[in-house]
Amino acid sequence: MKSIIHSHKSIRAYSSVRTVDDDILLKIVKAAIRGSNTGNMQLYSIVITSQPKIKQQLMPLHFNQPMVEHAPLVITFCADINRFSHWCKLRGTEPCYDNFLWFSTALTDTIIAAENAAVEAEYHELGICFLGTTMYNAEEIAKVLNLPKGVVPVVTMTAGYPAEEPPLTERLPYEAVLHFETYKQYTDEDINKYYSDFENLDKIKEIVKQNNLNNLAEVFTQKRYTKEAGNLFSKKYLDFVKKSFRME
Amino acid sequence: MKSIIHSHKSIRAYSSVRTVDDDILLKIVKAAIRGSNTGNMQLYSIVITSQPKIKQQLMPLHFNQPMVEHAPLVITFCADINRFSHWCKLRGTEPCYDNFLWFSTALTDTIIAAENAAVEAEYHELGICFLGTTMYNAEEIAKVLNLPKGVVPVVTMTAGYPAEEPPLTERLPYEAVLHFETYKQYTDEDINKYYSDFENLDKIKEIVKQNNLNNLAEVFTQKRYTKEAGNLFSKKYLDFVKKSFRME
Repeated sequence: MKSIIHSHKSIRAYSSVRTVDDDILLKIVKAAIRGSNTGNMQLYSIVITSQPKIKQQLMPLHFNQPMVEHAPLVITFCADINRFSHWCKLRGTEPCYDNFLWFSTALTDTIIAAENAAVEAEYHELGICFLGTTMYNAEEIAKVLNLPKGVVPVVTMTAGYPAEEPPLTERLPYEAVLHFETYKQYTDEDINKYYSDFENLDKIKEIVKQNNLNNLAEVFTQKRYTKEAGNLFSKKYLDFVKKSFRME
Repeated sequence: MKSIIHSHKSIRAYSSVRTVDDDILLKIVKAAIRGSNTGNMQLYSIVITSQPKIKQQLMPLHFNQPMVEHAPLVITFCADINRFSHWCKLRGTEPCYDNFLWFSTALTDTIIAAENAAVEAEYHELGICFLGTTMYNAEEIAKVLNLPKGVVPVVTMTAGYPAEEPPLTERLPYEAVLHFETYKQYTDEDINKYYSDFENLDKIKEIVKQNNLNNLAEVFTQKRYTKEAGNLFSKKYLDFVKKSFRME
């Protein structure tokens, strides 16, 4: 029997009638915190938003992706040194986790918790979708969610019972991302081989055509994720993380 | 029935006789790449090391944690914009993903893949342990694994069939990390309540005593993860990530 991981699909449309029971939600949270984490410090927080009023405030910050409003659950996973630092101070010792290493470490532990939550949610037949937009407007999202210094939102997961059944998304052949012993240096031929199946999908060709571009790589660099937007949002995120984690 | 996530334990001792079959390894890799990822760009690489010679080179870089030598599999998960950028250039368009946002994004997608691999490994009755030390000596690990510019190691997982059965590790009560609608501001009473069960465990009291310190928070800040070490390794990691991802 295959584990459910192999059938993961991002779900963006949710049942408006079937709600998520509290006991299921609790299992998802408990799965999240069972994940591996550095030194058992649990440097993350999980904010579950379901009130329409707050979801509507989050909507534009996620570039109006409709599932933020329509998903029963909008779960924001945050790297969090605030709680641990508070505990250290209360025990009379100086916390020292506001730097780049600990941001990266807390981010790692937060994502492990988030992916555990995703797998557990799917185990209970919910559908989920991760929103990468959390990093684009992290400071504004932090304001809506009332996050203090030392707490940085890193990823958002919408969840609910699926109201759609999309096909499995294609991935590169596994050989493309897998290296034995040490990293293989890719030749041009390797790259052509690994990407060609994907580029030759009818739906990909249609996307390229609709954008009046020459190929899929141009769709990525000139439409979806441009240098201008990337540099703008990168600076915004870095400034906010620096404010929140100091970042030496 | 509970999902296997709820019984996760880090395994640091592995069977020296039972090897991991290739078909199991392939399922683990396929589970990793099935995970959610930004724009389906798959900005990660998975380096599986099993040769003793290379594992021995990695050993000191992971502060001589014995499982690096003794685990049948040492799997280094890397944030990777090299392959995607190579593809963009080959298609005649300029890649633009060398900044802090895309490092954080690639890190996120890499960890989702890594945690999927962990859950899948445990589904097949393997034991795993994540090593956070990867970020401490990332540049040196990159040298051993022959990683080019644009590829940053972020986490390492050792894997094999377990030769130990440790108890489940305690976590904070789930209420400590869970917030409804918006972030709850912790009072001193909250912190005392959430951490007290953990602090009062016999094994924790023993650790505090062995270190001649007053409490567990001091063990963290003065022994395990000190400010001096944190700032040193933070600077090292940031310098390396900047070299590899530019980081504006």
